[in-house]
Amino acid sequence: MPIKPSGKKDLARLIKPRVRKLKAYGIDETPCRIKLDAMENPFALPDNIQKELSGAVKRALINRYPDPSAKKLKLAISGLWGIKPETMMLGNGSDELIQTIVLAFGGPVLVPSPSFAMYGITAKALSQDVATVPLSRDFSLDAAALLKKARAIKARVIFLACPNNPTGNRFADEALLQILDRADAAVVIDEAYFSFSGKTCLPLLKRYPNMIILRTLSKIGLAGLRIGALIASPGIIGELNKIRLPYNINTLSQAAGVVTLKHPDVLNRQISLLISERNKLYNALSLMRGITPYPSETNFILFRSRTDATIIYNELKRAGILIKNLNKTGVLINCLRVTVGSQHENREFISVLKKLL
Amino acid sequence: MPIKPSGKKDLARLIKPRVRKLKAYGIDETPCRIKLDAMENPFALPDNIQKELSGAVKRALINRYPDPSAKKLKLAISGLWGIKPETMMLGNGSDELIQTIVLAFGGPVLVPSPSFAMYGITAKALSQDVATVPLSRDFSLDAAALLKKARAIKARVIFLACPNNPTGNRFADEALLQILDRADAAVVIDEAYFSFSGKTCLPLLKRYPNMIILRTLSKIGLAGLRIGALIASPGIIGELNKIRLPYNINTLSQAAGVVTLKHPDVLNRQISLLISERNKLYNALSLMRGITPYPSETNFILFRSRTDATIIYNELKRAGILIKNLNKTGVLINCLRVTVGSQHENREFISVLKKLL
Repeated sequence: MPIKPSGKKDLARLIKPRVRKLKAYGIDETPCRIKLDAMENPFALPDNIQKELSGAVKRALINRYPDPSAKKLKLAISGLWGIKPETMMLGNGSDELIQTIVLAFGGPVLVPSPSFAMYGITAKALSQDVATVPLSRDFSLDAAALLKKARAIKARVIFLACPNNPTGNRFADEALLQILDRADAAVVIDEAYFSFSGKTCLPLLKRYPNMIILRTLSKIGLAGLRIGALIASPGIIGELNKIRLPYNINTLSQAAGVVTLKHPDVLNRQISLLISERNKLYNALSLMRGITPYPSETNFILFRSRTDATIIYNELKRAGILIKNLNKTGVLINCLRVTVGSQHENREFISVLKKLL
Repeated sequence: MPIKPSGKKDLARLIKPRVRKLKAYGIDETPCRIKLDAMENPFALPDNIQKELSGAVKRALINRYPDPSAKKLKLAISGLWGIKPETMMLGNGSDELIQTIVLAFGGPVLVPSPSFAMYGITAKALSQDVATVPLSRDFSLDAAALLKKARAIKARVIFLACPNNPTGNRFADEALLQILDRADAAVVIDEAYFSFSGKTCLPLLKRYPNMIILRTLSKIGLAGLRIGALIASPGIIGELNKIRLPYNINTLSQAAGVVTLKHPDVLNRQISLLISERNKLYNALSLMRGITPYPSETNFILFRSRTDATIIYNELKRAGILIKNLNKTGVLINCLRVTVGSQHENREFISVLKKLL
């Protein structure tokens, strides 16, 4: 006895009002010759690792569910960064780990501004309040102002990208220590760009049980695998694991991660090369009239133009070079962000930019 | 000026109380000779597809972020099941899609009992209330009782696994239509086992805009890739996409999915073989004294033992055969669930079980 539809045509009205108000996160998918917008490592894997990878994929049983605790991959990451496996949880990129943290602690969430956009986007998608504290004009962090705001809004989570994206600087240790010491909230130190700064809060983990560290394999050559790592006390890992989806890291990413991390020398050589290229890029930008680059401890450089940055961005795009346009009123007015590419890509970028100015 | 720690040692106290109360989802990782616990397809990919897969992995640029909209994979799935890409969203397994649905609509969540455990586990991890409606003794769905409960608790999401796990039956079309017609909630029809039943609610999508369908590649040979598909109106897809993490499907799973789905004939042959094996397994179980199997439209069979099922489960395990123990008081007392394996695995399972009884 089929029943006629009752005319309830709008399922969207059942969606949470906070979700309906959001806009979807847009990613610039403009095809380009030189892609310097997303902090990717420009180097493909060398042939010998590619070959090993093919072998591992061949052996992987993709008809079976993945190892739910990704034991081998955890051990490999453990070895790379000197982290105990029991203090680690892996995510489908740091994105998933940011989501897990907000789901576990709830909001409000407090972030400096400008910082990595996904903290706010994720928290809002989870229907949580997000508050911001402006960075100083030199992009330094005012710990006292942040702590005051945290108390006022009763923040449950504070995200601090160290080094910070999109500004490229690392906040002063004094500011971090002050926040870790005084905030009555989970303090997330996102070390996505750790490999390019060499500085870490990891040794502070025992002293500050309210600290959670994020790392990722995305910036050091494995963005396609989607592997983020969260480091915290075993107690916190236990709580967060209750929210983690049991099979969140797929079989092929696990296998490819294990193979690649057997070759830390290759990754480290690429990192050294990128650091040296970053410094060359910074110097070249410094020498350009009307351009002010900001010091960077990452694999990208933020720079400000004396003229309309959006015009520069569009002209570069027309020349086949994609960077990130951050030009908004306020502290990032006329700012652009360029990812450090290969020697060839950086030269081409500098050469096209010179012609534009 | 380093500051002494303030002695706030317990970050866990900041975790939401509803999360603290949860237990982590446990997966049985007992090593075994014959694994028939997880509804996996027992067949590895044939050599020619494996070879193609290796080639695709070699070409994949894992130093770059994945395609955020997984266009090629969506097209491939589109082709496999006759679904328009604009009505589809992909997830890191259906698990992630279940999470996205609950995040978008909120709770309370209503599920029949027994059904797939992840509906309730996920909703609870997201701090939402979960209510259940018992299935009848023959595992059929009482639509009137479910609708009454849905109204009473103001359910926002109803999950219906069709066919149902762990019972193996598909709910009557009449019951489904009645719920789709009358419920003022998102009605999620989880067709994870669609390939083994051949029946689908897909043609009803236009008529019932409050319906969301879930499918997965996990049961048809690709569990390791973690690819689930959600099918709904473009409007709903737009809302859910706001919550989806932008790079949720990694590069290697996208590539491997595209390669495998070029060979639907291989997948379909495996499915036919598994259906025929399921029927043989059912007949063999029917002939055993003290065992009652339930009819199945899936790739598993639920069966009840006249004696203590946990003893049977443990004895099978000791013999190297892992199945799922569902023995609890209530409707599943002395029930076990066996996944349909290869011909050899099923024979071995039957032979060991016979000896045990």
